Amino acid sequence: MATTNGGNVEVVAALPAITRQDNPPPKQPALEPLTLAGIAARRAKAGKLIAGTAAYSDSDMFKSPQAYNQLKARRWDHLLSPEVMAREACALKKAALNLKKPGLLSLGGGLPSSDNFPIESLSMQVPYPPFLGKTSTEALRRDTTMGKHDIRDKDGVYDISIALNYGQAIGSAQMLRWVTEHTELVFCPPYADWRCALSIGSTGALDSALRMFCDRNRRDSVLTEEYSFATALETMTPLGIKVFGVHIDEQGLLPNSLDEILRNWDESARGARKPTVLYTVPSGQNPTGTTMGVQRRKDVYDVCSKHDVFIFEDEPYYYLQMPPYDKANSAAHPGAVDVYSNQSTEDFLKNLIPTLLSIDVDGRVLRMDSFSKVVVPGSRMGWVTGSEQVIERYIRLQECCTQGPAGFSQALMYKLLDETWGHEGYLRWLIHMRSEYTQRRDALLDACEKHLPKDVMSWTPPATGMFLWLRVDHTRHPHAGQKTILELEEEIFDSCIERGVLACRGSWFCAERDAELTGLFFRTTFASSSPTDMDVAIQRLGEAVRGSFGI
Amino acid sequence: MATTNGGNVEVVAALPAITRQDNPPPKQPALEPLTLAGIAARRAKAGKLIAGTAAYSDSDMFKSPQAYNQLKARRWDHLLSPEVMAREACALKKAALNLKKPGLLSLGGGLPSSDNFPIESLSMQVPYPPFLGKTSTEALRRDTTMGKHDIRDKDGVYDISIALNYGQAIGSAQMLRWVTEHTELVFCPPYADWRCALSIGSTGALDSALRMFCDRNRRDSVLTEEYSFATALETMTPLGIKVFGVHIDEQGLLPNSLDEILRNWDESARGARKPTVLYTVPSGQNPTGTTMGVQRRKDVYDVCSKHDVFIFEDEPYYYLQMPPYDKANSAAHPGAVDVYSNQSTEDFLKNLIPTLLSIDVDGRVLRMDSFSKVVVPGSRMGWVTGSEQVIERYIRLQECCTQGPAGFSQALMYKLLDETWGHEGYLRWLIHMRSEYTQRRDALLDACEKHLPKDVMSWTPPATGMFLWLRVDHTRHPHAGQKTILELEEEIFDSCIERGVLACRGSWFCAERDAELTGLFFRTTFASSSPTDMDVAIQRLGEAVRGSFGI
Repeated sequence: MATTNGGNVEVVAALPAITRQDNPPPKQPALEPLTLAGIAARRAKAGKLIAGTAAYSDSDMFKSPQAYNQLKARRWDHLLSPEVMAREACALKKAALNLKKPGLLSLGGGLPSSDNFPIESLSMQVPYPPFLGKTSTEALRRDTTMGKHDIRDKDGVYDISIALNYGQAIGSAQMLRWVTEHTELVFCPPYADWRCALSIGSTGALDSALRMFCDRNRRDSVLTEEYSFATALETMTPLGIKVFGVHIDEQGLLPNSLDEILRNWDESARGARKPTVLYTVPSGQNPTGTTMGVQRRKDVYDVCSKHDVFIFEDEPYYYLQMPPYDKANSAAHPGAVDVYSNQSTEDFLKNLIPTLLSIDVDGRVLRMDSFSKVVVPGSRMGWVTGSEQVIERYIRLQECCTQGPAGFSQALMYKLLDETWGHEGYLRWLIHMRSEYTQRRDALLDACEKHLPKDVMSWTPPATGMFLWLRVDHTRHPHAGQKTILELEEEIFDSCIERGVLACRGSWFCAERDAELTGLFFRTTFASSSPTDMDVAIQRLGEAVRGSFGI
Repeated sequence: MATTNGGNVEVVAALPAITRQDNPPPKQPALEPLTLAGIAARRAKAGKLIAGTAAYSDSDMFKSPQAYNQLKARRWDHLLSPEVMAREACALKKAALNLKKPGLLSLGGGLPSSDNFPIESLSMQVPYPPFLGKTSTEALRRDTTMGKHDIRDKDGVYDISIALNYGQAIGSAQMLRWVTEHTELVFCPPYADWRCALSIGSTGALDSALRMFCDRNRRDSVLTEEYSFATALETMTPLGIKVFGVHIDEQGLLPNSLDEILRNWDESARGARKPTVLYTVPSGQNPTGTTMGVQRRKDVYDVCSKHDVFIFEDEPYYYLQMPPYDKANSAAHPGAVDVYSNQSTEDFLKNLIPTLLSIDVDGRVLRMDSFSKVVVPGSRMGWVTGSEQVIERYIRLQECCTQGPAGFSQALMYKLLDETWGHEGYLRWLIHMRSEYTQRRDALLDACEKHLPKDVMSWTPPATGMFLWLRVDHTRHPHAGQKTILELEEEIFDSCIERGVLACRGSWFCAERDAELTGLFFRTTFASSSPTDMDVAIQRLGEAVRGSFGI
């Protein structure tokens, strides 16, 4: 196909638009939320997806024909940065429009011919549902293969000749279909013109989002949880964007604190314009592990609407929503029965906390989804969801930086998520991951119950994610008057290292770097260590705290 | 390994430093350029590469123990942007230093356990040298496989548990070794402290380089060929960076023009600070197809030194250096014998044009290499080479945007380039690619000789790359007085589309968008179309030009 469909390499080769073998489905109300069966029916109706090298696609091609709300998102021209407003579609792209002319021969785009790709096939062995074992290695397995010309030779919809050539910055049509369907299935954005685009992971998506909405020359600033994701803070500061912390409780952001900051903003005292962006991790927040409940999300959203603040919703841990911790029935106990592992996918979906995107009638949320925590970090592929305007600007930026995720990642993730598992298999995998993480969390919490001095330490069992935030009551420390919180934190950290355990210091996550510490915290994770190691590690941590407090 | 080596996800998990099984090789002069045998000997001496999840690595670990020049690169603090100078290594990274302590248990980094990766193995079928066929599909083939725990189970050096977890922004130690060795083998940078880092492709690397060296608030500007790569121009302009074109001839950039612009810079007339950056594609330039000779490169470099201009050397087409076009012995003729296809790798290396990096005694070049044109575009993986200072800043930026190339790409490219082909096999593949592109180029040039009106059209057979730049002599057009060059260009372009051929308009590549066109050009490519299609396409193009000129 590449020989006649040559587009242009440089811009992300805008090429033949997608065609379908059948007619588009007739417009009809689809007021019921989308289901797995609905996706299957829609695909069957739409016919085989035909999308060649660097084919243009967008989410509208894969959404329900009728949106859940006919109202379109608001426009964000007043918040978008001059940099991103100045971005234009490439001049060369205009040429691509001509490629639809039958019989046109292209000498235009410098796309290499797939004849010269030194990769004939890609294969992968993956677990297959039901995911029976405690780890993926004990599960059933399947092999899946992609050849260079599966579309031509095997009636496939995606192959190496397309996946490994230049593509669109939005991602391949094949993967975009999957993320769009998944987004509608789970999040149901309540405005008409929402769209998705693939990202190279949420770190990259956040950097792009900041370039889109913040400008140092406007003295723009961002709000976030008072303890926030360290890399996010480090992404913002060098861009000249000031970051301000919002107070939190065990459910994360406090709407009152958010409102108070915005109501009483003093530009000259703060040295920054009133914030126009909120960056938040609503579920399993890093580092505090907090998860906003439904009402909290609505309240936070309302405050943002009131002050016209745009929201970056960063949700890598979203699917790691676990049942409440029950000490007596810890999932880490030998022989513990996981009643949730056989949950139906309908129940699983029904019980997920609604996202900010799900209540976003204005299109003021740019949501970032990631496969890093639930599939593999090394895909460097995730996706963003937002209004048509915001996603269009996002794509213009990607055309001049990432060009979308790697073709290897798109090819292999497509084989896994779409062809091998399908939407249902992926949901079953997420249910399985939740069980895995519940066991890990419970092992860490069991160790805390066993080893930590409760008179000076406290914690809230996380409902989501991979982090446990430990509070140490510095006011009860014998040197509380003489030493600062930072000094006590350092003393305990050093003692931990000496005893052979590493936990992250709370001060590393302070949203406002110069602000005084309000508490003494350590972040721990249950993502990677074995239950035995976690038990020993927490015992050492407890000893370090006891040693410092002299108890 | 991940269970005990937990680092931190957020920053790119800084983790255990690389260890080697044997002692480092003794320091000794290595004044002879590195050879394939030298790489093999060095690897044998160094012992097995052991680099776990997110292990720290840098090029110094893989370079010759003695540099070709003991002098270090200059410092670039005066040119680097405030944004990139403000970037700091992550606070969490400090914690990683403690991980070297024996027996330390980490509750620090949120790296997922590879137990939960749903990928047991990755396999790939690839051609193997000698690359006999006209296309890769006719070559010998080999299968190569990477398992989840090849290091633990199979004495491997790289596996899924590492490649698909979080890694360092510089790239994996395993791939960094390969690109460092390749860089020394081919480019021999003549200063002591050069280093490499993987990129997500040169589009991303250029965006990063611009963020590193240019700042709209300083009114920074960039010089480039007067006709330049469209996406590069579109990357610069929205950043608020003014672009200025340097005159070119059939060898590309004219040193005199470059010097004249810089000598006579009038900041207020130009509306920008005197340029501090030159962006150039020295080989097979896009769109003009020009390649700078050795002396030209030296002269351009000298002018840049004189005016303290930093150089971005973008070289995706570097290895597509072809023998001169000989009409009578066109490589596209049936039965043509390719005398170069059996060239030794030593001869191949010896005959490559020295790069700007190869003559860069100051460390003022940031070179961008790409696999897109010679392996697959879909790897979204390439590498940059520059001084230690520049590469260190580059990595700090990547930590907060790309986090390095995808693990899938690193895993599969490693299997292909290092384990299956090795350096020698890759060079043989490049020799093979050169033959492929020579045949393609000659087919296009044959068609031009046959079909184009030489009285009004001219071209220089490209010595490198994938583009042929066709000049139309607008002064001989019957409407030369009445119509602008842009109007004539549009007329011929439209006529081409009508006749069924797409070629890119020269005006799409003008470095200075408001400047008047100096000539009438069309860019064509021989990268993707078949010889038959190219013949028909050029015939149509010739008809369009003849039609417009009435000849």
